[in-house]
Amino acid sequence: MGEFDLIARYFTRPAQGRAATGAAGAVVLGVGDDCALLQPAPGMQLAVSTDMLVEGRHFLSTVDPVRLGHKSLAVNLSDLAACGARPLAFTLALSLPSVDEGWLDGFSRGLFALADEHGCALVGGDTTRGPLNICITVFGEVPQGGALLRSGAKAGDDLWVSGTLGDARLALEVFRGTLELPAELFALARARMETPAPRVALGQALRGIASAAADVSDGLLGDLSHILRASGVGAVVDADAAAGCIAARAHPAFDLGDELQRLCALSGGDDYELVFTAPATAREAVAQAGRASATAVTRIGRIEAAPGVRIVDAARAPVEQRFTSFDHFV
Amino acid sequence: MGEFDLIARYFTRPAQGRAATGAAGAVVLGVGDDCALLQPAPGMQLAVSTDMLVEGRHFLSTVDPVRLGHKSLAVNLSDLAACGARPLAFTLALSLPSVDEGWLDGFSRGLFALADEHGCALVGGDTTRGPLNICITVFGEVPQGGALLRSGAKAGDDLWVSGTLGDARLALEVFRGTLELPAELFALARARMETPAPRVALGQALRGIASAAADVSDGLLGDLSHILRASGVGAVVDADAAAGCIAARAHPAFDLGDELQRLCALSGGDDYELVFTAPATAREAVAQAGRASATAVTRIGRIEAAPGVRIVDAARAPVEQRFTSFDHFV
Repeated sequence: MGEFDLIARYFTRPAQGRAATGAAGAVVLGVGDDCALLQPAPGMQLAVSTDMLVEGRHFLSTVDPVRLGHKSLAVNLSDLAACGARPLAFTLALSLPSVDEGWLDGFSRGLFALADEHGCALVGGDTTRGPLNICITVFGEVPQGGALLRSGAKAGDDLWVSGTLGDARLALEVFRGTLELPAELFALARARMETPAPRVALGQALRGIASAAADVSDGLLGDLSHILRASGVGAVVDADAAAGCIAARAHPAFDLGDELQRLCALSGGDDYELVFTAPATAREAVAQAGRASATAVTRIGRIEAAPGVRIVDAARAPVEQRFTSFDHFV
Repeated sequence: MGEFDLIARYFTRPAQGRAATGAAGAVVLGVGDDCALLQPAPGMQLAVSTDMLVEGRHFLSTVDPVRLGHKSLAVNLSDLAACGARPLAFTLALSLPSVDEGWLDGFSRGLFALADEHGCALVGGDTTRGPLNICITVFGEVPQGGALLRSGAKAGDDLWVSGTLGDARLALEVFRGTLELPAELFALARARMETPAPRVALGQALRGIASAAADVSDGLLGDLSHILRASGVGAVVDADAAAGCIAARAHPAFDLGDELQRLCALSGGDDYELVFTAPATAREAVAQAGRASATAVTRIGRIEAAPGVRIVDAARAPVEQRFTSFDHFV
């Protein structure tokens, strides 16, 4: 199968997603020319983000291609969510070691299922032969001046996190052989690792409420530090409140110690949740945004003027443990 | 060096390109948040294209990193040129086997030199460890309804090509060991292969004049076929007029046979020129667009109603040779 047949068979569809005919924002021209053409609605800005996934770093070679297709787009949609943007379109560049039709069929199904869920149209891309590499660039719309940024956190703001934390890391440790989990618990953690749910609806619901936001991809503390640096503030983080966000805790067979729970919740990585700040006066508004988007929101700390992060336990006693975030080059 | 230090040292600059302050089109927010924010000027559309470069497929492992930085952006700007779009911004996703500071220094210098030449700002990206892979997504502005498309060619239109053809292929054949060239001639051909000049100014000058356009990346005939298919037409191509576009021919030591010249010009690949069509009544306008953009334009054939490509020589006799375009999966 040639390059153009491959694109035609797996990555071209009669209707290029609902976004193409959406009321706000328009894909003027999709796949098939030298460029795609996008035109944000009047008064809207285009939010842009790109992520590259490499075999062995971001996913295991054994991963189900349907799940990999989902995750490849999910990690990008998570960046749009962190800005409060509504997904519009994406491009896909794909380097493949060979034409494996079973893999392409699964990958494209997982990819398009999530794309359709968010009305996000594939508008262009590139395919080549080489070591497996997936690079997606995603486009969303956000009202002019309405994007959630990392730079707006203020001393006194609450610190919040969406959804669940740390489960992806538990699954990774099982794959690494450093942890054993009952089969049912592992399946739950593995699903969080392989099919994260980008918090797109919550991100949009938080516009005008959250003072700052980032997505949690490299671990909570690492991504929080981007907010703190950009905002020129520090934070107190309740490690036990964060550990309380581990989804697997709800399972009767869960019996991991406090230290491991804190590690996974605070610096697990691959969570694709939102960490965000909001004034204490906005607590009910944040809760309402969570309900409106059917997404759990948990208050895990407070922003302070003094730089740096102070980690405490449920009793407000300092937690000594060192947590580092994931870095591809360290 | 960690991931964020690497980005700070090689890919963050005090002024994020001239485009950020350009009169038309605006980069509202560049590198450093979850998303970049772009806002096309009123009445403008955003042209988007993405290209992935893999070591051993798109470039040799021995290539000068300065030239590779140039080429990585050039191949993307060439897609904007084919649409007649003005470059605005780009994202860069980079997978690196290791942190090689000499390589990063050269690559980023070559990249930014070309970016500055075109007022194109780096607004975001991703870095990870893995087999060397460079994925750039580029954004340009084009007036609403003004983009050059592949689908507008009409029977009776002239067929044109910009600049020079086939030299990159000559250099590739020298690297492959199938051809020998005098050193000076090889240096010339190699420069065309490693530092192509995207025809950005010509593309914009052809708006309202050309009826269809595409960039020549996989070989003239292959890229022409995209125009013919999208427009529902065919073409007659003068192989000798195309071969006349080989830059190396101007060198006194050039002595390659007709057949090799035609092969390189018609299906060489890596040219990053524009192939375009325009009504015969627009010949002077096309010539003027070439002069205004200091880019050679050569008429190499004619669009006809009958599908397919008919290749002829300077005497209008059919040329029998089979030419195929480059396909990564065949």
